[in-house]
Amino acid sequence: MALREDALELHRLHKGKLSVVSKVAVANARDLSLAYSPGVAEPCKEIHSQTDLVYEYTGKGNLVAVVSDGTAVLGLGNIGPEAAMPVMEGKAVLFKQFAGVDAVPLCLNTTDVDRIVETVKLLEPTFGGVNLEDIAAPACFEIEERLKKEMKIPVFHDDQHGTAIVTLAGLINALKVVGKPLQDIKVVANGAGAAGIAIVKLLLSMGVRHIIMCDTKGAIYEGRQDGMNAMKAEIAKITNPERQAGTLQEVLAGADVFVGVSAAGSVTQDMVRSMNRDPIIFAMANPDPEILPQDALAAGAKIVGTGRSDFPNQINNVLAFPGIFRGALDVRATTINEEMKIAAAYAIAELIADDELTPDYVVPRPFDARIAPAVAAAVAKAAMDTGVAQIHLDVQDVERRTKSLSAIK
Amino acid sequence: MALREDALELHRLHKGKLSVVSKVAVANARDLSLAYSPGVAEPCKEIHSQTDLVYEYTGKGNLVAVVSDGTAVLGLGNIGPEAAMPVMEGKAVLFKQFAGVDAVPLCLNTTDVDRIVETVKLLEPTFGGVNLEDIAAPACFEIEERLKKEMKIPVFHDDQHGTAIVTLAGLINALKVVGKPLQDIKVVANGAGAAGIAIVKLLLSMGVRHIIMCDTKGAIYEGRQDGMNAMKAEIAKITNPERQAGTLQEVLAGADVFVGVSAAGSVTQDMVRSMNRDPIIFAMANPDPEILPQDALAAGAKIVGTGRSDFPNQINNVLAFPGIFRGALDVRATTINEEMKIAAAYAIAELIADDELTPDYVVPRPFDARIAPAVAAAVAKAAMDTGVAQIHLDVQDVERRTKSLSAIK
Repeated sequence: MALREDALELHRLHKGKLSVVSKVAVANARDLSLAYSPGVAEPCKEIHSQTDLVYEYTGKGNLVAVVSDGTAVLGLGNIGPEAAMPVMEGKAVLFKQFAGVDAVPLCLNTTDVDRIVETVKLLEPTFGGVNLEDIAAPACFEIEERLKKEMKIPVFHDDQHGTAIVTLAGLINALKVVGKPLQDIKVVANGAGAAGIAIVKLLLSMGVRHIIMCDTKGAIYEGRQDGMNAMKAEIAKITNPERQAGTLQEVLAGADVFVGVSAAGSVTQDMVRSMNRDPIIFAMANPDPEILPQDALAAGAKIVGTGRSDFPNQINNVLAFPGIFRGALDVRATTINEEMKIAAAYAIAELIADDELTPDYVVPRPFDARIAPAVAAAVAKAAMDTGVAQIHLDVQDVERRTKSLSAIK
Repeated sequence: MALREDALELHRLHKGKLSVVSKVAVANARDLSLAYSPGVAEPCKEIHSQTDLVYEYTGKGNLVAVVSDGTAVLGLGNIGPEAAMPVMEGKAVLFKQFAGVDAVPLCLNTTDVDRIVETVKLLEPTFGGVNLEDIAAPACFEIEERLKKEMKIPVFHDDQHGTAIVTLAGLINALKVVGKPLQDIKVVANGAGAAGIAIVKLLLSMGVRHIIMCDTKGAIYEGRQDGMNAMKAEIAKITNPERQAGTLQEVLAGADVFVGVSAAGSVTQDMVRSMNRDPIIFAMANPDPEILPQDALAAGAKIVGTGRSDFPNQINNVLAFPGIFRGALDVRATTINEEMKIAAAYAIAELIADDELTPDYVVPRPFDARIAPAVAAAVAKAAMDTGVAQIHLDVQDVERRTKSLSAIK
């Protein structure tokens, strides 16, 4: 298979995908005396006198740690920290190419929540932000929650929130196409992992009232005994107000939206036929979606999105995380809050004008150069508006700067 | 002062000195599918099936963590992890410019030995080597010792061993100039910090028999009660066989070599006059040496070296660490052992041919492009000869490759 061989060759060619380079010349004794001893003592002394100056004299403010323990890598599962490295390097490549963010992979030799939290916290002086990646549920929830509470730099678990933000962006546009208001729709989300939980929570914070989450045992409802955990218990409390029980097939009947972050083949054409008029199907299982787009459309689906680049409406995290970190770093936000996530989703959605929207085009394409600048500006604005920005900037400057830093033209 | 303003401007200009860049293009959907999902799963699977392939498909094999807790930064002392960042970035710049090594600063928000050891160990899947930097004694000794024991990648505390290696290189050449054999000289080392201890140990392993180490309380000897610690007790056991007591002034009388890693002004002209014929003075206190070269020479010193670029014979770690890591990484050494350090010292020394040696030129100059390639080749050879190399290479290839990777031409 060409993809396999080409991908291996690409990774072998330069032994990985990243390089650390110097922004300053060191070609003679004078250069050395400025970039290193004795001149380097000057910025050290400045930062020592006022810690925040680390943002002026070092790369901290543009440096993101891409942290993984290798327990939930792509669809491959728990393959360990070394095998996770190519993904984390890839993530760092995308950070740089799409938004000019310097990112380094940090794959940790532990799966223990306390040790991961401790390690990331100790690295705070070096980094401007932390992107958690491919850490299995439920550990990922506790790790993110504790780090957000205990660190003063943005911490963002992309598998949760990146997916949720792009899903929301797609849904905002899809609902315009079918003419249904967000508040009235019934959503069924299948798959109670990191992404599914984050999607449900983001939709709830947007005012969606009718959501049922399913796992392999069917609908999650308050009082269910089988296969529950702390996170599902929380979900049971905040969704499914009518405590509807049943299989995915049973609860999907009459729904407006299916959001799948589950497994190939879990949705049939009959299930699509049982939904409310103009069904919206986001079948994001990778690499094979819950139902193939052509099958869903043939069964009456109005709009179908997947995780794949070879079908329309690709729900891809790369639409979100580069611009989100760009915006958060630029205004030195202390966190990435709900308002910033929602602003990112709207910024992505609004790149498609109403008269351009079609069932095949509710999500912008990854190489649309407008995305990261628009997301960065919206996120920076939301951070300033909600009081988590430590510096204030003109959002148009954020947008222009992101555009100039991005390699996507 | 121009240096101060220029150094601040250099660091402010680009906000730090490092950038993380992509070695692969990501300009379209095909690129994305190879560098990231779904193609990236292929190298992940390969590494999962055989962990060592992480060296083929990722940058681990060329990536060094520059780790500090900010407790002993330059001559500034304990200024904290943020203020240490410019130095660690500078170190990473030199790694890249001199030997093509990718390095990232990791400044840790703790000074606790256990927590530093734990954190660095957990990062092992990501890095090919660890350069410890500017960590105060005695913590630095325990941290290095434990990490060397518990990790399978090279761990090297540059403040100790880099300084020791370049000092040894200078001494090898200086002794040629004055015609004294290493085994017969009497060395007095002043300053019992990280560098001083490492220098003494390296000289001992080279067969130097007469060494006395001094601290601020004078000569260290077995049985001394005042101001001792575990490391000084160990030094007392392995040096000063005659248990000579006394001040630096007293024990320096009759010595052949003074090695200072202490404080400005601790050596007087009278003290130089009290030494054996053709005294060798390595006065490496920064920024002001223990005695100024012109004063030492006027008092009869034959050879003077300092840490400064504005005097002859600069003892500068940059002669050692880039090539040492280059050589160790290239043969995937599991450690940096004594033989590799000694090989590095000889490689540096031998760049000056016997007929080029003069009292003013016993140490090569930092921008001599032959240094890193020669050191890398010598270190790689020593690693292979001592059985710590995991792969075997032609040393001439190591030298050629280092030359092509180095920006020093």
